[in-house]
Amino acid sequence: MQKSPDAIENLVKKLAKLPSVGTRSARRIALHLLSDKDLNMAPLEQALAFAKETVHACTLCGNLDVHDPCTICTHKHKDASKICVIQSVGDIWAMERTGFYDGHYHVIGGVLSALDGITPDKLNIKSLLNRLDNVTEIIMALGATVDGQATAHYIAEQIRTVKPDIQISRLAYGVPIGGEVEYLDDSTLATAMKSRANF
Amino acid sequence: MQKSPDAIENLVKKLAKLPSVGTRSARRIALHLLSDKDLNMAPLEQALAFAKETVHACTLCGNLDVHDPCTICTHKHKDASKICVIQSVGDIWAMERTGFYDGHYHVIGGVLSALDGITPDKLNIKSLLNRLDNVTEIIMALGATVDGQATAHYIAEQIRTVKPDIQISRLAYGVPIGGEVEYLDDSTLATAMKSRANF
Repeated sequence: MQKSPDAIENLVKKLAKLPSVGTRSARRIALHLLSDKDLNMAPLEQALAFAKETVHACTLCGNLDVHDPCTICTHKHKDASKICVIQSVGDIWAMERTGFYDGHYHVIGGVLSALDGITPDKLNIKSLLNRLDNVTEIIMALGATVDGQATAHYIAEQIRTVKPDIQISRLAYGVPIGGEVEYLDDSTLATAMKSRANF
Repeated sequence: MQKSPDAIENLVKKLAKLPSVGTRSARRIALHLLSDKDLNMAPLEQALAFAKETVHACTLCGNLDVHDPCTICTHKHKDASKICVIQSVGDIWAMERTGFYDGHYHVIGGVLSALDGITPDKLNIKSLLNRLDNVTEIIMALGATVDGQATAHYIAEQIRTVKPDIQISRLAYGVPIGGEVEYLDDSTLATAMKSRANF
């Protein structure tokens, strides 16, 4: 039996590797793109190329942005005395959508995990410790998972060694246990940020 | 409040326009792509460019392929005396996956719809009527929707005007009412093809 030809099969495979896209959706997307290349495929290609060329990680906080330092780090209404420690850039987007937090961020890039071989030196913890001057509060906004909380404890310990008088808080209980920050609904996230407690 | 910058927002918007991708999935995909451009974004860009350059619609049947006429139209084990009339290329893929049908196809590109202004001249019906020499059977495999069946009746009428002795069949009942061919599970589709009845 003749299978669908290589270039299509290859595109479907690449699409199916994207998060939250299965093989069935990948086929639909490939067909959609190929059915009208000018209308459907060209704008996506341009958006990809444009984003690839212009978007970079902020050297201060790790956010993805067209500016470096990013628009949050240089924003005049963002309070530089607060740093919210989060796992990934998606968590910044989720937090910004709530509109409740007005401080800076620090993307550590993951959580400690013995199983996955994620040791402290693989996370952006050192860069966090280097930007604590003039910072009065660190807010831990890592997931309420075992690894997330272990990571928060480790980071808090490191911070207290360098700067013992800094206030360290965490998101309020209200984050569902086992859940990841990125996928919370906005109101739960806003509530959790509002009623944050000492760490 | 600072929103995520233009290039990212633009990419998210373009991704969210893809079928079966919502805004939330689009954000995840954009982050995934931007988090490692070499590993995640480059292969997708290449697959898109390669498919865009090499994949074209078959001038005979309308299938998408790197060859023209397509690999199905030129396949030596495909029976050219049977033509299966389907709505879109996705239906060919679904049909080929069942492995049950060994004939040719004809993509008409949609179904008649007064509401959407889809009149007979907007579908590839004329090209079907032009390739009926040496064809003994036409199998209607349009969706079991009102529009799909109306379209099948219209096409059957046109075919009988040109070539009254041709056998016209349809997929067996078994296609769920309201359902589209592309989304059927393989065994239902194979059964429906096997027990096809006269139209």
